[in-house]
Amino acid sequence: MDMRPIGVFDSGLGGLTAVRSLRQILPEEDLIYFGDTARVPYGGRARETILKYARQDVRFLRSFDLKAIIIACGTVSTTSLETLQKENDLPIVGVVEPTCRRALAVTKNRKVGMIATQASVRSGAYEETLLRLDPKVEMISRPCPLFVPLVENGRIHRGDVVIETVAREYLEPMKEAGVDTLILGCTHYPLLTEIIADIMGPEVELVSAGEESAFELKRLLKIRGLRTDEDRKGGAEFYVSDRPEDFECTASVFLGEDLHRAARRIDIDKY
Amino acid sequence: MDMRPIGVFDSGLGGLTAVRSLRQILPEEDLIYFGDTARVPYGGRARETILKYARQDVRFLRSFDLKAIIIACGTVSTTSLETLQKENDLPIVGVVEPTCRRALAVTKNRKVGMIATQASVRSGAYEETLLRLDPKVEMISRPCPLFVPLVENGRIHRGDVVIETVAREYLEPMKEAGVDTLILGCTHYPLLTEIIADIMGPEVELVSAGEESAFELKRLLKIRGLRTDEDRKGGAEFYVSDRPEDFECTASVFLGEDLHRAARRIDIDKY
Repeated sequence: MDMRPIGVFDSGLGGLTAVRSLRQILPEEDLIYFGDTARVPYGGRARETILKYARQDVRFLRSFDLKAIIIACGTVSTTSLETLQKENDLPIVGVVEPTCRRALAVTKNRKVGMIATQASVRSGAYEETLLRLDPKVEMISRPCPLFVPLVENGRIHRGDVVIETVAREYLEPMKEAGVDTLILGCTHYPLLTEIIADIMGPEVELVSAGEESAFELKRLLKIRGLRTDEDRKGGAEFYVSDRPEDFECTASVFLGEDLHRAARRIDIDKY
Repeated sequence: MDMRPIGVFDSGLGGLTAVRSLRQILPEEDLIYFGDTARVPYGGRARETILKYARQDVRFLRSFDLKAIIIACGTVSTTSLETLQKENDLPIVGVVEPTCRRALAVTKNRKVGMIATQASVRSGAYEETLLRLDPKVEMISRPCPLFVPLVENGRIHRGDVVIETVAREYLEPMKEAGVDTLILGCTHYPLLTEIIADIMGPEVELVSAGEESAFELKRLLKIRGLRTDEDRKGGAEFYVSDRPEDFECTASVFLGEDLHRAARRIDIDKY
């Protein structure tokens, strides 16, 4: 039994969808979340910049005594996971491989779509992982750079012509290509599930990155004997690099609970 | 006569509209531009974070021997200008005061609107400056957080339902309030001039921040005897903190000229 908390980080708020999944799938575990809200978004940045930021994020989280880390950021997972795993002596779970395994489990026609930020698509990591796991799969990927700002501005509801128009532009070519599975490769995108499902239709299965990494971590903790007492109820601490007030307001939407005065600010440049 | 270059900085690309104005208004001057593309956008960040970033931007620019600096970033101008002026022994021009003077010169009914990023609106700097210059003016301000990502994704054209819907939501309350002058308080917004003018109508005058600071700098250089030889043609150097390729591509749109291989990357955290 291991009572130490699990660290989770993201470039900003998106990783909270992973926190939400973790609370459902591993409700007994304590979580420490860091959102790098002063430097969000990572999505359009250079690989070296992303790695540098990710190292600082890990160093901050490791100022706590952790048993594992989830990288709840698609951009970091697709560009820096291997390096971070080599540099650290604790289990680090990204979002790419668990998500790819799930996509391969559900696809029937082996045509898988993937939507994510510019940097995640550019990295080719989803494609590489999918093809390593199944060389016969066909993948079509597409960056959706406006989804993150639209989600963060609350444009997530059916009937909003802005999100619906942008989503149609991004997704219709994917639907026409005949994918039967669509990976939501950015942790903001689960908030657009309704909009995306409406466009893709009921025959296309949506696979959400945050949820799959929570399942992967559960498996890993079990194998390594790192789970805590299953009867307890875990807590969560939230740290950000910019105004906690702004974080709390949007985070409450992501987590579906009131986070008033729950977040603390740290100076990430010190790590 | 002073041949030293003028420094210009912005959180990202938006300041290039100021570069464009400078080239028209002071074509003989050399310019050094820094765009903090690794940490853009500043707009939603805390005041302390913005000041810290702005100090680093100024330190980088001052690694060149400059005669003046233009802060082409509304967010920095409205939060950090006075501090930067106190800390530096060269003229620093922001975008707020020149823009306010111009708005007061054109308004007839003394109802002035202002649109900008969240941080610029929250700072209250435009309102404070306008009221200091004319205590009887009425100002209505409004953050337009989706304008920057929409501009950077090229959604700037008439007939695009996405930008037109968002712009109508932001601007119609301002039009209904009866403003006859509208300050574009973010350097990205001049690229939306057509869209904004269509909604506000011909009776509302648009005042663009970047242009007014170029005029202000011209006046200042003249008074202090800092202008260069008026017969020469000035050049420009571009520095960024993230991928130059991405910068060059969008910058060419902002400046209306080809910037292929013209930008160099620097590590802003070293300053």
